[in-house]
Amino acid sequence: MPIGTQNKPLQTVMWEAGKVRLIDQTALPEKLQYVEYTDWRDVAEAIRTMVVRGAPAIGCAAALGLALGARGIIADGRESFLRRVTGIADTFRAARPTAVNLFWAIDRVLAAAAETEGNPVDLKDAMLVEALLMLDEDIETNRRLGQYGAALLPDPVNVLTHCNAGALATVGYGTALGVVRAAVEAGKKVHVYADETRPRLQGMKLTAWELARDQIPVTVIADSMAASLMRQGKIDCVIVGADRIAANGDTANKIGTYGLAVLAQHHNIPFYVAAPLSTIDTKLASGLQIPIEQRDTVEMTHIEGIRIAPEGVDVINPAFDVTPGELITGFITEKGVLQPPFGSEASVPALPSEGQEETEAKETVTA
Amino acid sequence: MPIGTQNKPLQTVMWEAGKVRLIDQTALPEKLQYVEYTDWRDVAEAIRTMVVRGAPAIGCAAALGLALGARGIIADGRESFLRRVTGIADTFRAARPTAVNLFWAIDRVLAAAAETEGNPVDLKDAMLVEALLMLDEDIETNRRLGQYGAALLPDPVNVLTHCNAGALATVGYGTALGVVRAAVEAGKKVHVYADETRPRLQGMKLTAWELARDQIPVTVIADSMAASLMRQGKIDCVIVGADRIAANGDTANKIGTYGLAVLAQHHNIPFYVAAPLSTIDTKLASGLQIPIEQRDTVEMTHIEGIRIAPEGVDVINPAFDVTPGELITGFITEKGVLQPPFGSEASVPALPSEGQEETEAKETVTA
Repeated sequence: MPIGTQNKPLQTVMWEAGKVRLIDQTALPEKLQYVEYTDWRDVAEAIRTMVVRGAPAIGCAAALGLALGARGIIADGRESFLRRVTGIADTFRAARPTAVNLFWAIDRVLAAAAETEGNPVDLKDAMLVEALLMLDEDIETNRRLGQYGAALLPDPVNVLTHCNAGALATVGYGTALGVVRAAVEAGKKVHVYADETRPRLQGMKLTAWELARDQIPVTVIADSMAASLMRQGKIDCVIVGADRIAANGDTANKIGTYGLAVLAQHHNIPFYVAAPLSTIDTKLASGLQIPIEQRDTVEMTHIEGIRIAPEGVDVINPAFDVTPGELITGFITEKGVLQPPFGSEASVPALPSEGQEETEAKETVTA
Repeated sequence: MPIGTQNKPLQTVMWEAGKVRLIDQTALPEKLQYVEYTDWRDVAEAIRTMVVRGAPAIGCAAALGLALGARGIIADGRESFLRRVTGIADTFRAARPTAVNLFWAIDRVLAAAAETEGNPVDLKDAMLVEALLMLDEDIETNRRLGQYGAALLPDPVNVLTHCNAGALATVGYGTALGVVRAAVEAGKKVHVYADETRPRLQGMKLTAWELARDQIPVTVIADSMAASLMRQGKIDCVIVGADRIAANGDTANKIGTYGLAVLAQHHNIPFYVAAPLSTIDTKLASGLQIPIEQRDTVEMTHIEGIRIAPEGVDVINPAFDVTPGELITGFITEKGVLQPPFGSEASVPALPSEGQEETEAKETVTA
């Protein structure tokens, strides 16, 4: 069944009439509602509180938020403007520590300002244009990586995914779920197992919701059920997103990803990371250097505002873990299925011509 | 700090003045409350709805429930009485399919009746005496296996456990947590990581609660966090309970156990199963033959009565998985730390004399 026969494709991050408009992901799956921001500080807070989440979506929301903040600056001149823009950028950078796309996006919008000649009005325009370009690029990137990934999948296929690396984690279409969508569009029969992803249940609340909305078959499981399904031969491959990828391929992603990678290796199941190149942090030699966000333990002790844990018991809540690059079968990017080490731009292969795409994707993985 | 300085040891299953008295585990950790049953059918329902849970506790509750049911039978004679007792036993057998202790306990109480001479009154007494003996034996068994297990642990030690194999899963003291308690009593410094254990959160709600009650340090984690802690060297060993152990050592236990065993192997961490011999089902050659209970998916889709899953999305809820025997470092039982295959009684080693206990436990595991 074609995608979107009943529903418009989701767009998670938008610019509308001078406002940043986001899908409120804390309201899903009960209701699909949008929130609009006219104050950049509220956009930063929306990132912190996970109204918007997912590395690429965070990046684009921050880019738009920074452009929004810039528009509000009343500055005497160019230097004063740039100084104040940098202050806003720092607030966005502090919103969440792990996903590198946030820093990448902020840097790109700042560079657009710095590289533009003229007065603050010109710089504001350049920043917004750059942010909007990034939104368009994000969807295009996901469609491209989706095609590379889809070529890797058998038909029929049972895909296990963790957390949400879907339309809701990006501007649209998704990374891991972009691969799923592209496979469905290519006519493959795809069934997804979605780990519920404690503590915040993004797999149950977001991944299952957005796949069901697109009529893609999905079954929600507790995180602890994945191993048993693998042993029963019910999982053909694992595809996850990423929050930051080090030069050696070590990958930070939602807590629980590392365990899945170990389990996949034990069961000889391919384990793919689907992410745009902007998620690769070539400055980091290994995953040891990736900062891991520790979130409020109330996410563990309470669900829907109700306490589920005994009072006074110690709880931890690391939001991410790091999967060693050697456990990852391939990195599905907009430039093909890559292998570490990831160095400078030069080491990234050139875009293949149309006819070569599928072949290259397959070769890279069987290599 | 000695156990029970502030609190009496928990007793999960009791016989009191003609009634079966259970801790209501569905009310924990909010409140410690007891429920009393005068109708055996309600005891069977309490097993089904997990007011009482944990393989040994289920067995003992069923034994008492059957004895309670027997007392209510008004029968002409011995044969009529035994026929009606068998009917009650069948209802208990149907309450939950995976834990073998249930069947073992029912058989033992039935045998006590069958082997007793005399009229129905004599048989009723024999059944109750047998059930009460099983309650005493359970605590004694757990204390013994606890000592064997405690000898295996380094000092200090970080133990990871899954679900609840504690006092609340037994009549008292616990199996996996019996090992923890015995290690603490032996003066070892023990810290427990408790997997929360979705969907029913027995790790968070029961294990953390009963350890905190005994002032044993415990940290609750999401099931998906275990792998990352192992990689960081924060877990010294894994100890879990069991619902049924096949002759070759394949072990059914709470869903998620199998994944932990794979992860433990990957990280070279010892993985122990702590269980009484009554959990070993020597009639089953392998774990393939263990029936896996599929529970109501509402346990997945709702928490505290609130829907957390999108409407209409497919969900599965297998309550157990099977861990292959070869992933299990040792089986901590009341007769020592054993290795499969488990055959007839003859293959179970004789009880060592006091002086040999610790040595034997160590030897068995390093073998």
